[in-house]
Amino acid sequence: MPSYTAPTRDMQFVLHEVLNVSEQTTPGYAELEPDFTKAVLEEAGKIASEVLMPLNAVGDTEGCVLENGVVRTPKGFKEAFEQMKEGGWTALDLPEEFGGQYMPYILGTAVGEMFSAANQAFTMYQGLTHGAASAILVHGSEDQKATYLPKMANCEWTGTMNLTEPHCGTDLGLMRTKAEPQGDGSYKITGQKIFISSGEHDMADNIIHLVLAKIPGGPEGIKGVSLFIVPKFIVKEDGSLGDRNGVTCGKIEEKMGIHGNSTCVMNYDGATGWLLGEEHKGMRAMFTMMNEARIGVGMQGLAQAEVAYQNALAYAKDRLQGRAVTGTENPNGPADPLIVHPDIRRSLMDQKSFIEGARAFMLWGAELIDRSHRGNDAAAEGLISLMTPVIKGFLTDEGYDMTVLAQQIYGGHGYIEEWGMSQFTRDARIAMIYEGANGVQALDLVGRKLAQDGGKHVMAFFELVKTFLKENEGNEALKADFLDPLKAASKDLQASAMFFMQNGMKNPNAALSGSYDFMHLFGHVCLGLMWARMAKSAHAALEAGTSDEAFYKTKLATGRFYMKRRLPATALHLARIQSGADTVMALEAEAF
Amino acid sequence: MPSYTAPTRDMQFVLHEVLNVSEQTTPGYAELEPDFTKAVLEEAGKIASEVLMPLNAVGDTEGCVLENGVVRTPKGFKEAFEQMKEGGWTALDLPEEFGGQYMPYILGTAVGEMFSAANQAFTMYQGLTHGAASAILVHGSEDQKATYLPKMANCEWTGTMNLTEPHCGTDLGLMRTKAEPQGDGSYKITGQKIFISSGEHDMADNIIHLVLAKIPGGPEGIKGVSLFIVPKFIVKEDGSLGDRNGVTCGKIEEKMGIHGNSTCVMNYDGATGWLLGEEHKGMRAMFTMMNEARIGVGMQGLAQAEVAYQNALAYAKDRLQGRAVTGTENPNGPADPLIVHPDIRRSLMDQKSFIEGARAFMLWGAELIDRSHRGNDAAAEGLISLMTPVIKGFLTDEGYDMTVLAQQIYGGHGYIEEWGMSQFTRDARIAMIYEGANGVQALDLVGRKLAQDGGKHVMAFFELVKTFLKENEGNEALKADFLDPLKAASKDLQASAMFFMQNGMKNPNAALSGSYDFMHLFGHVCLGLMWARMAKSAHAALEAGTSDEAFYKTKLATGRFYMKRRLPATALHLARIQSGADTVMALEAEAF
Repeated sequence: MPSYTAPTRDMQFVLHEVLNVSEQTTPGYAELEPDFTKAVLEEAGKIASEVLMPLNAVGDTEGCVLENGVVRTPKGFKEAFEQMKEGGWTALDLPEEFGGQYMPYILGTAVGEMFSAANQAFTMYQGLTHGAASAILVHGSEDQKATYLPKMANCEWTGTMNLTEPHCGTDLGLMRTKAEPQGDGSYKITGQKIFISSGEHDMADNIIHLVLAKIPGGPEGIKGVSLFIVPKFIVKEDGSLGDRNGVTCGKIEEKMGIHGNSTCVMNYDGATGWLLGEEHKGMRAMFTMMNEARIGVGMQGLAQAEVAYQNALAYAKDRLQGRAVTGTENPNGPADPLIVHPDIRRSLMDQKSFIEGARAFMLWGAELIDRSHRGNDAAAEGLISLMTPVIKGFLTDEGYDMTVLAQQIYGGHGYIEEWGMSQFTRDARIAMIYEGANGVQALDLVGRKLAQDGGKHVMAFFELVKTFLKENEGNEALKADFLDPLKAASKDLQASAMFFMQNGMKNPNAALSGSYDFMHLFGHVCLGLMWARMAKSAHAALEAGTSDEAFYKTKLATGRFYMKRRLPATALHLARIQSGADTVMALEAEAF
Repeated sequence: MPSYTAPTRDMQFVLHEVLNVSEQTTPGYAELEPDFTKAVLEEAGKIASEVLMPLNAVGDTEGCVLENGVVRTPKGFKEAFEQMKEGGWTALDLPEEFGGQYMPYILGTAVGEMFSAANQAFTMYQGLTHGAASAILVHGSEDQKATYLPKMANCEWTGTMNLTEPHCGTDLGLMRTKAEPQGDGSYKITGQKIFISSGEHDMADNIIHLVLAKIPGGPEGIKGVSLFIVPKFIVKEDGSLGDRNGVTCGKIEEKMGIHGNSTCVMNYDGATGWLLGEEHKGMRAMFTMMNEARIGVGMQGLAQAEVAYQNALAYAKDRLQGRAVTGTENPNGPADPLIVHPDIRRSLMDQKSFIEGARAFMLWGAELIDRSHRGNDAAAEGLISLMTPVIKGFLTDEGYDMTVLAQQIYGGHGYIEEWGMSQFTRDARIAMIYEGANGVQALDLVGRKLAQDGGKHVMAFFELVKTFLKENEGNEALKADFLDPLKAASKDLQASAMFFMQNGMKNPNAALSGSYDFMHLFGHVCLGLMWARMAKSAHAALEAGTSDEAFYKTKLATGRFYMKRRLPATALHLARIQSGADTVMALEAEAF
């Protein structure tokens, strides 16, 4: 059975030696002292390893079962969910007045990585609740906040987001679900939603559905979409639960993975709902949820890569097969461990260098969110808005590939379910799809985010890289291994942005043909930047005479691998981008 | 439900306009006239679409069940298998004296692609039989051939290959299964084999297991391994079936995919077996089977990519979502089809250009096998021996990635099992693992094949590319789009081979750290070469005033895409190879 050990040491390094969180002026950051974050992370790590991980395979094997309208979650999920509630792990960053602890998002992100790694399907129940609560927090009336948030903060009630319908996913303007005003401030919601994660289950007293629907007579398409709160049980004035609402689960989907999470078809038959935010401004309200969810999904890519890597590493050290080409390394055994073989090492380094770079990138992104939300820092908001599709798209694509690499190390044992490696890839696969398929992320990045506010945010990103390079230009220890490759990669990114600017307006297909490559190019530069920053911190620690030399030397070696073997992919992406639409769009649709 | 249409037109193009099979002097090739191959391919295509494809999802959902030692295959498999036998589809290329049709392997390969695309799990039953029959054909005594081949030719009896044991996969020297001589020419085989595809099932009267085992007292390790024929039922002198042999299926594995094929734990409890080939020369005999099997597995990568692509394409044309960025293309519908979007187009072109290039590569490889086996052409044998790991490793890695791209086009519908796209990726995943995990293919390529016979075969490959470029250097239609990129890619391949020669001896880790990249680099150059050859043929057809202009123009546009957007990956692979072992092997195993 696979196991999981929380990467607390690595998280502490990023938080305190790279991002220096407790020295930041962002409200709440002063409290993030190393001892405090360490205590929180270790406690969370224990839950991840001891409570959630053992349920991961159970969830996969048993799945969720729908019987007579009731969804039964896998054995042990309910008890574990109670433990999460009791431990206060469900609402780390919600405001205290609503029952949360108002901890910075960055800490919630680190904890979230652990929980997702140990059991993605399980963690989604509270993840979606958190997203729905955030939307209510930002767009809800005082009354709505008071009614729903305290119960959602501790997951006594859970939440969902309802966007997709059978005929519309990305193109929500095609939506058919209707919301008819009843004159008393409520609406009757009618329609069918599909792919609703955690849509129905047996772990909470109530489920608060956030549902996109159209109010008849409103604007056509996406501009006529509004967001509604539709509770499974109507909440009475005194806060107690009243009538069962007209929303039911019609079916649970059979999926490739995340079997422990109930993916439901939800039928709304004149269900009572209340407007959340303004009429016809549903997309804006939903995007509060979506942006957060996208970052959370990027984190899932990293998390599955981490847990798969940990197990692949253990197997590579344990499994004896063949002899090292440079001479026997395990003379007393019948063969050497897999890890002696260069191609196994290459695979492990691919994984390790991605994971640690991605973790730093992820936490940096979370820091920007805190600056934006808690510190009202518009520049931070612009930057994280730009990078959100990169975090979502790049980290889930690469994260998935890493689970495939990890699975491969097991050979045939990776393909049979017994060892659990197949589950990691099957679970990781969804992250490339939900909350906007990665192609849509690329479109968002190139078609919208790049030119947003006159291209200000991408300029800020380039400036940030430039400043870092300038500040460290005298650092000979960093130059050849880190600064030069970062500079080259960043130049590729700039050249591609330039290509889009010059061609995007007159030939949008030329820009969009390269959107996917751009998302990956951007991702590589972000990881390259994080590796350069981490290398700087590692060198500083070594120079200061750290007692943990091994950690910092390993960090540097891992970073050098990334810069040398992964980062040069930027040139290939640039070449593809610059080839424009000519070969991509050469065929008429009929010619395929 | 997914569907499948055999790519007969494309196969005919490769066979007759690129490889010009009926003009070759290889024995049996003169009969491969266009009308003949077309008739065979169309008939096979019909079976693939109408018989095998409808059973693909059934096999996935039902899987195989072991009850009281008997394995029940999914509903409909048995009847379909009877149809395959009756139609003579199981032994196209076996010699006529043993009940085959002695058709060239190239035609069997084209047919095999269709059957594998439509139902990989099902086709494995006959694929493994074919491999086992080939080993008996080459290494068996006259008596063994007469006893087993006629029944295996029509799959009345099926075959298996038994290599892996719980503690040894790649490193077969660790094998524990024993074969004790009984003095009467037979051996008692005792041990456990795992991951035995088609190991036990209900579709044949007998199952002929080819089993690797060690004769006590023989040489240590891999040099003491022999190959044995161990039939499920002992065959009596008169050819009828006698006693049940001491071999049983202990368990069926739960796997990520190919559920329709029974992957068995096989227990040999003093089972009676007969030596196939010479004592202690089991690996050599097994490799007859393995080499063929590896090429067959490469073909599975292509096949799954093809069927996944066909369905993704249909969905992209059908599903309405969003509007083309260059203006509405479907004004009468609520939205435009997915295929208008550049990133969807990019994905489809990635798939299409891989598939068609891979098919040509595959068929060229099969042609080399025919030249080698039927024509005793040593140069062809050397070349295909070199390229076998490339066909296996590159086509299955890329083939898998293509199924993931195809699945992605479906968005959330790709993740639920209902649409069948998940099965294509899950089934395709095994091809990267079995018959030698792809890392082992890369090791075989760089560690063995490259330097084989003094590097003669790789030199022959370079010569072949050079000759092609030289022969066509005046062809302006080909130059910029095909010849120049091929030249550049081939130069990258040569530079990497040079790197291995210069560094491999003094630092084998430096060579092996780049082995995986080399396998991919080589694969890209092979596909680049095939695309250049196809482009030449397409131009020729257009100049000759073909009546099928659309086909050839599409072919050229698809090839241009490959050369422009996929082939430049060679530079990245070269850079990684040239970076050597420094970053790959920097960490001690303990530092991970």
